Amino acid sequence: MSAQPAAPVPVAIEPEQDPHLVAAVADGGGVVVPLDQARVLVWLGSPADFPSLADTVEWVALKTAGIEYFRAAGVIDDRRIWTNASGFYAAGCAEHALALLLAGLRQISTSVLLGWNEEVIPPAVRTLRESTVAIIGAGGIGRELTPRLKACGATVIAVNRSGREVAGADRTAASSDLDRVLADTDHVVLAAPATPETRHLIDDRTLALLKPHSWIVNVARGPLIDQAALGRALRAGTIAGAALDVTDPEPPADDDPLWALPNLIVTPHIANPSPELTREMAPWLAENVRRFAAGGELISVIDPARDY
Amino acid sequence: MSAQPAAPVPVAIEPEQDPHLVAAVADGGGVVVPLDQARVLVWLGSPADFPSLADTVEWVALKTAGIEYFRAAGVIDDRRIWTNASGFYAAGCAEHALALLLAGLRQISTSVLLGWNEEVIPPAVRTLRESTVAIIGAGGIGRELTPRLKACGATVIAVNRSGREVAGADRTAASSDLDRVLADTDHVVLAAPATPETRHLIDDRTLALLKPHSWIVNVARGPLIDQAALGRALRAGTIAGAALDVTDPEPPADDDPLWALPNLIVTPHIANPSPELTREMAPWLAENVRRFAAGGELISVIDPARDY
Repeated sequence: MSAQPAAPVPVAIEPEQDPHLVAAVADGGGVVVPLDQARVLVWLGSPADFPSLADTVEWVALKTAGIEYFRAAGVIDDRRIWTNASGFYAAGCAEHALALLLAGLRQISTSVLLGWNEEVIPPAVRTLRESTVAIIGAGGIGRELTPRLKACGATVIAVNRSGREVAGADRTAASSDLDRVLADTDHVVLAAPATPETRHLIDDRTLALLKPHSWIVNVARGPLIDQAALGRALRAGTIAGAALDVTDPEPPADDDPLWALPNLIVTPHIANPSPELTREMAPWLAENVRRFAAGGELISVIDPARDY
Repeated sequence: MSAQPAAPVPVAIEPEQDPHLVAAVADGGGVVVPLDQARVLVWLGSPADFPSLADTVEWVALKTAGIEYFRAAGVIDDRRIWTNASGFYAAGCAEHALALLLAGLRQISTSVLLGWNEEVIPPAVRTLRESTVAIIGAGGIGRELTPRLKACGATVIAVNRSGREVAGADRTAASSDLDRVLADTDHVVLAAPATPETRHLIDDRTLALLKPHSWIVNVARGPLIDQAALGRALRAGTIAGAALDVTDPEPPADDDPLWALPNLIVTPHIANPSPELTREMAPWLAENVRRFAAGGELISVIDPARDY
């Protein structure tokens, strides 16, 4: 007598049924159902629209890496497992960080603004080769960004809370050593979660540790930077430039003086644009549905004590 | 009795004595002298200003990679050795090519132009991961660019005249196979010298082999692209965009309709801006002066039969 096959895991995908994720649920051995029949909710919407959940929902998968807005809205409870998107955001963030850093160093935004200018642009061009880049908050993004930077000839300093080694980095430092790292580095990439400790990590004091040729890239969360302080440093030329995929607030106000700075690049939070994101998320979701069906440990479970 | 030490090689650096190169000559065991006492001329100027040379000048080092303008001006003769800059340009060109390709895929130029736009920009963002990039003319630049693209998760097709294998590339093709390569690739980086055979390599016919999501990057020479054909493809949207560090003519005329295309990025020939260039050139020059003094074979000797 053969064993009864396990019933497929019932998964709701809300508020809209993304085709990549519908396919992933099937791939992982699940079946897409309405929310009131689901043991799993994949939530693609905002914290404000989050539905009230019956206790029959055992696992909620969020599509953001930072979950501070869901936490602030009181959505995250301790009655079920919650997962975030830290795993499948990393590669997109790393590529976007590299693109922003190179766009700054290589004067691409000033070329777009000024056209064929042979006075201002050539002397401002810098190279990643033989430069040092510090990745602040080097978890998954750091693991993806490090080999990209190394391939460009840069030296990488990875900074994280614990100082635990990041594979491939030339040096790893604990965040308590941040000042020394900033004094030693040419450029900075911010990849840390938004927590009370990381708020305004880049401010007047830490900006003063950087150099006139330094670029700062932020692909994490806007509040990591004190934007008024950044504006002062950019206007004074104490750093070379900044390239931000995230801002505070987001978007910046139309009359924010930051918009007028030629050495500031802003992209509209597109490190993982939605159409790409669910394609990236699909293999992760399939794997997690498979693990859930087998009673195994899920990937990217949110630590209830942290905002990431 | 000890051997008489060899006299230092007399090297002229003209028209101006760049400090990186003056140091490099000393490092290579040479001495900087006026041109009329020199066995070697390092020429940093244009073809038009090139001096007439006595036969006592045995080697001329040019600072450009492509030497078609020196050839056209009748400067290059067969009375001495000529070297070009193909060796030390490659890393800068590779980094700039990566920067341009990522700026296109990641919508950095449209972000600079449009500001925080959430309608047009996010759906247009593309990624290098799992994409295929063809490097056309894969010599030194190809060797430098390939590992950078691989680190970003791309598949690399290297195309060169002979089809000789390029280390690290996923596939190498001969230029006679160009059509098939263009049909197989997502994006194209042009890194070929300007020769009669490469003129208008990218034209209406070859553009039609590309895809609506394809980006073309040119860090080589403007005439490789039929710019009028490129403009038609960009306006029609049969390719996604182009990013050019070189144009034809250079710079484009102020009223060139290319300037109005939002999916065209132009940088003012800055893959190797002069201040960086002589720093890059210095170790090469020191090594070549050392080889010259020892009667050895020089690096980057120009093949009289070719324009590179």
